[in-house]
Amino acid sequence: MKRLNVLLLLLLCCSIVRAENGYDLWLRYVPIKNKSLLLEYKKQIVSPVVLGTSATAAIARKELSVALLGLTGSSYLINSNINTSSVFIAGTVKSSAVLSALVTKEELNRIGNEGFIIKAKPGKTFITGNTDLAVLYGIFHYLRLLQTNQKVINLNVISIPKLKLRMLNHWDNLNRTVERGYAGFSIWDWHRLPTFIDQRYIDYARANASIGINAVALTNVNANSIILTPAYLEKVKKLADVFRPYGIKVFLTARFSSPIELGRLKTADPLDAIVQQWWTAKANEIYSLIPDFGGFLVKANSEGQPGPQDYKRTHADGANMLANAVAPHKGIVIWRAFVYAAENPVDRHMQANDDFVPLDGKFNSNVMVQVKNGAIDFMPREPFHPLFGAMPKTPLMMEFQVTQEYLGQATNWVFLAPLFKEVLDSDTYAKGKGSTVAKVIDGSLDDHTLTGMTGVANIGNDINWTGHPMAQANWYALGRLAWDYNITSDTIADEWLRMTFSNDAAFVKSTKQIMLRTREIMVDYMNPIGLHHIMATGHHYGPGPWVSNLNRPEWNPVYYHKADSVGIGFNRTASGSNAIGQYHPEARKQWENISTCNEKYLLWFHHASWNHKMKSGRSVWNELVYRYYTGADSVKWMKQEWLKQQSKIDAQRFNDVSMLLDTQLEEAKWWRNACLLYFQTFSKQPIPSNYEQPDKTLDYYKSLRFPFAPGN
Amino acid sequence: MKRLNVLLLLLLCCSIVRAENGYDLWLRYVPIKNKSLLLEYKKQIVSPVVLGTSATAAIARKELSVALLGLTGSSYLINSNINTSSVFIAGTVKSSAVLSALVTKEELNRIGNEGFIIKAKPGKTFITGNTDLAVLYGIFHYLRLLQTNQKVINLNVISIPKLKLRMLNHWDNLNRTVERGYAGFSIWDWHRLPTFIDQRYIDYARANASIGINAVALTNVNANSIILTPAYLEKVKKLADVFRPYGIKVFLTARFSSPIELGRLKTADPLDAIVQQWWTAKANEIYSLIPDFGGFLVKANSEGQPGPQDYKRTHADGANMLANAVAPHKGIVIWRAFVYAAENPVDRHMQANDDFVPLDGKFNSNVMVQVKNGAIDFMPREPFHPLFGAMPKTPLMMEFQVTQEYLGQATNWVFLAPLFKEVLDSDTYAKGKGSTVAKVIDGSLDDHTLTGMTGVANIGNDINWTGHPMAQANWYALGRLAWDYNITSDTIADEWLRMTFSNDAAFVKSTKQIMLRTREIMVDYMNPIGLHHIMATGHHYGPGPWVSNLNRPEWNPVYYHKADSVGIGFNRTASGSNAIGQYHPEARKQWENISTCNEKYLLWFHHASWNHKMKSGRSVWNELVYRYYTGADSVKWMKQEWLKQQSKIDAQRFNDVSMLLDTQLEEAKWWRNACLLYFQTFSKQPIPSNYEQPDKTLDYYKSLRFPFAPGN
Repeated sequence: MKRLNVLLLLLLCCSIVRAENGYDLWLRYVPIKNKSLLLEYKKQIVSPVVLGTSATAAIARKELSVALLGLTGSSYLINSNINTSSVFIAGTVKSSAVLSALVTKEELNRIGNEGFIIKAKPGKTFITGNTDLAVLYGIFHYLRLLQTNQKVINLNVISIPKLKLRMLNHWDNLNRTVERGYAGFSIWDWHRLPTFIDQRYIDYARANASIGINAVALTNVNANSIILTPAYLEKVKKLADVFRPYGIKVFLTARFSSPIELGRLKTADPLDAIVQQWWTAKANEIYSLIPDFGGFLVKANSEGQPGPQDYKRTHADGANMLANAVAPHKGIVIWRAFVYAAENPVDRHMQANDDFVPLDGKFNSNVMVQVKNGAIDFMPREPFHPLFGAMPKTPLMMEFQVTQEYLGQATNWVFLAPLFKEVLDSDTYAKGKGSTVAKVIDGSLDDHTLTGMTGVANIGNDINWTGHPMAQANWYALGRLAWDYNITSDTIADEWLRMTFSNDAAFVKSTKQIMLRTREIMVDYMNPIGLHHIMATGHHYGPGPWVSNLNRPEWNPVYYHKADSVGIGFNRTASGSNAIGQYHPEARKQWENISTCNEKYLLWFHHASWNHKMKSGRSVWNELVYRYYTGADSVKWMKQEWLKQQSKIDAQRFNDVSMLLDTQLEEAKWWRNACLLYFQTFSKQPIPSNYEQPDKTLDYYKSLRFPFAPGN
Repeated sequence: MKRLNVLLLLLLCCSIVRAENGYDLWLRYVPIKNKSLLLEYKKQIVSPVVLGTSATAAIARKELSVALLGLTGSSYLINSNINTSSVFIAGTVKSSAVLSALVTKEELNRIGNEGFIIKAKPGKTFITGNTDLAVLYGIFHYLRLLQTNQKVINLNVISIPKLKLRMLNHWDNLNRTVERGYAGFSIWDWHRLPTFIDQRYIDYARANASIGINAVALTNVNANSIILTPAYLEKVKKLADVFRPYGIKVFLTARFSSPIELGRLKTADPLDAIVQQWWTAKANEIYSLIPDFGGFLVKANSEGQPGPQDYKRTHADGANMLANAVAPHKGIVIWRAFVYAAENPVDRHMQANDDFVPLDGKFNSNVMVQVKNGAIDFMPREPFHPLFGAMPKTPLMMEFQVTQEYLGQATNWVFLAPLFKEVLDSDTYAKGKGSTVAKVIDGSLDDHTLTGMTGVANIGNDINWTGHPMAQANWYALGRLAWDYNITSDTIADEWLRMTFSNDAAFVKSTKQIMLRTREIMVDYMNPIGLHHIMATGHHYGPGPWVSNLNRPEWNPVYYHKADSVGIGFNRTASGSNAIGQYHPEARKQWENISTCNEKYLLWFHHASWNHKMKSGRSVWNELVYRYYTGADSVKWMKQEWLKQQSKIDAQRFNDVSMLLDTQLEEAKWWRNACLLYFQTFSKQPIPSNYEQPDKTLDYYKSLRFPFAPGN
């Protein structure tokens, strides 16, 4: 076989027959093209050693072996013992004197169980930590340096996760439908568990470990008690067994009425001794199968879910009962603050604080309250949730939505790191300036040790995991920011693009520029200047600002935009619902005066007249027109920029994104036209003639139906 | 880069990072290991030419290029023009004098539009036919020869499909659930169509073309009229556009009440002129989008579906109305004969013949009647359907079930070619001995030109398409037998194993031996000696012979096994329901006398006493015990044999099949224990003590519930 043929065969294997279908995520380990860099890496990485006898250490050896072969083209035997020639050593500090000599006691205390240290100088590389998991994290970090073509000759890295729980919440039902899932169906093949272990489970765990995700709730928060039956717990145990060596703990959602449904009790009252015993026995049963079970995630008394209020008990009563059941096993309870009640006429924005602030200090020490990033529901843009900074005695966990329920679902390219960071960087002023949301959730503001961030997963059984190829970046961003919220959106995009597509400088620069703008573009063509919750009903696919006939007022878009002949927007100032009063005064200041309000949130907090003058000099009506048109036009720009990348990457993913951008443009125009035509019925003002006029009527947009839109 | 490293990298790309996940089906095109054979192939395949300017010709060039690179490791430029050195030429006879000189007029007439001719002698290879599609089929045939390591120096192949329509029926719903689907969810991502063309659509078409499948019904026979709305027809058009160059025509299922649901008519009476006009307009609309639309597939007046009998019209009235609508466009109507009515007390076995035989000769010339292989419902073993041979004036289409609704669903390894062939080879005696079912459906017995065979697809969005890796063989077998039902099960298994796994002789021999036994093994542990329809209700997962409480008598397993203190089995002879009377007398003979009845069908046709003596010398009870135990034990043997193959194939698929065999063994024991314990309550006889006794009680098996079993 001629060398040329071998190379062609190689090319074939890697690029033609087995196209880039996205399954490998950011762990592709393709050959490094920069030859001088490759040479440098090869000099530095000689006879690598990964110490340790655990399953985690074996995983680290395998990952390193596969990655180095892919990246360098050379086969490396990864040793598990040090010999005199060892110059690349990974392992816990306890496993080798060479490694323990590298670090101070102070460093060891500081890095905890998951932090790692990497030190390198020419010809020497050491990766260490207190546990095999920390070493695995260090190896993934090191591989990221190689994958992104960074220098590795001189390194002095100490990396410590800022949050203890870095989590994914799967809203996956037992029939494999996924609530708000846009990437196919659930990857949990419950039917073939516990015997059949899908390779996906392993690759899912690998991907999570590579970005530091260490916890996963497998089931929908709109929970089914069947997950707690013995047959299903056997299945859960198998997943936990797969995930354990990757450092991932399993949580389950607990349906509050399970004692009735499974235990045939007459009540699920959390203060009832029999109910408490039922949960204690259930917890014991779970822990007998899964000794490191994480605990329960609970949605209670929200959107029809059962909960302690059914028995006139508080959320704290409910959470503490479950917390008592799992406490002997060091489990925790994550209790969601996303509550609003059918019979409560108060602005939905305010109901979580109304319910939860009085309970601050009443939760057991192994309870976390999980708070959505904003008070409404994962909108394209929301001010931070007023609970952040309002419950200093309670550890609050951040809940982001990675799946794009309100951000274009299956078809729109939106990079979410800027959204996540906007929230994390927001200042609650709870203890004066600098009391950011990040400092609330990392425990530093109020001295909590239970800390965490979760993302509602965007993962499904599509071959590429996330449906839209670019949505993989949001899974990646969630993990990276949960590890360290100080990483910039630019850095996250840069890393992800290099690993997922190419280190080509022009490609990275141009595509990163698109990514970093996507979220603002979407806000413009969906929900500009503070509009929110104006999507269609049920599936939430597409615009539906006209919807007004749903049973509960706060389910209707008209409740949120309040457009009328005078103007548009929800007055949440003191003259309105006064939801703004739930924020600390300094925080309030940026929004409470309509003249000085940050215009991103104008219609969130104010009912502004159609002719209210914006900083741009445009009226509110003309600003809406401008934003909607600019947003849609920007999708054209995204497409133009993307088309320039054709030669830089593989055909399949290039084409997939191109086709999806076509859809995104159609959908952006649909949002623009439908919303402007509808709001025009109130503003009575024209879309200025220099804009391309809508080619369909409002009635047409109102008539559209999507009975099979996904994720519903 | 050293050569060794390149080879290792190659290995990595092909085997480690990108494991064998089954996506590539039988089109893997991995390097040929036999060096002398490879040399021979390289000598024979020089400067290959594929003539033609159509999309189909371009596909043939691309497939050949990708395949040859993969198989030989050499890069081939596939020319589209002949030059003086061309020695490997593929193209239609019209495209080149070299090719037209090869064949006679008689041959050209005989091969039709799809048959192909391959002629080769040392240093010369020609592939030709009347159309570019025939040439593509010829190229796939040639590639199969290479993939299975056959000689290609001297070839004289004329291959002509025996059936005109070689079809897959997808029972896929618009919400992407798949009725009786066990491989995930529907591959049709309706939501992202028409803009987003999933690579799967293309690879699906490639796979089908490679085995000659040329028609596909996209939607469930339990149909939803929404598929006929303009928005969905745009989506269907896109799929048709993708499939067209691969020779695949699209069919849709037509819900008979669509004129009411979509057209707001008051009736769907097929003799109503307005209804007829509605369908004609709908057909015209479809054909304006899809000029080669295949036509409609209809399930009517069966299991709750609407149909012409709702208006006191016949199936012929309904079919002919639709046939008239599509006739001007050369479309056809495929009308299913799977009917049985709630209010009809007659043995369900007989109802299709009762309804359809009187209509023979009354269907329009562009109607086919699609008949399931047996009269009940795709059981592990059924005698052939008595309609075959009973409707000589009507073209009958065979309907097999490739998805394993009653044959182990998601977890059991059953190779279906022996089942398909058993039916096809059955003699109806309609025109004397040799009037096989195959001759009924290929039109030769009754001189029909409309001919076809369909399989209810086992395809879903699992990465490997079919869930169980071994289930791919059933898709393959359906295609191969629809092309030529004379191919043996042994040949099909051999081809498929070599292409899908390995040409290693020991592997092929051993694994083929398993495959060829799987179906009999399953019959033994599920439905021995003629038992049928004794599965659990609804999802049909697992045994449920005790079920007796369903609304309709013929839905209950007790209706079918009729076990009582005397014996077991359904008397369908003249002294019973006389369903046997629907067969021709010679066919009847093999079954009608309990003493001479082919014992495979004993309890299908007879109520045999528990002590009736079998040819084995055992009583019926002891024979049941023997079969159930032998079947389950044989799964152990399958596992033992499979474990020996570990070194022969890739780890992922080896492990997947191993785990699934563990499940299959558990399920075989479950069937065995549950059925024997239940039937024992009638036979009052022991399971002989030399057998391992059931470790659970009948009540335990009765208590099992599977609310989320797939495919329901």
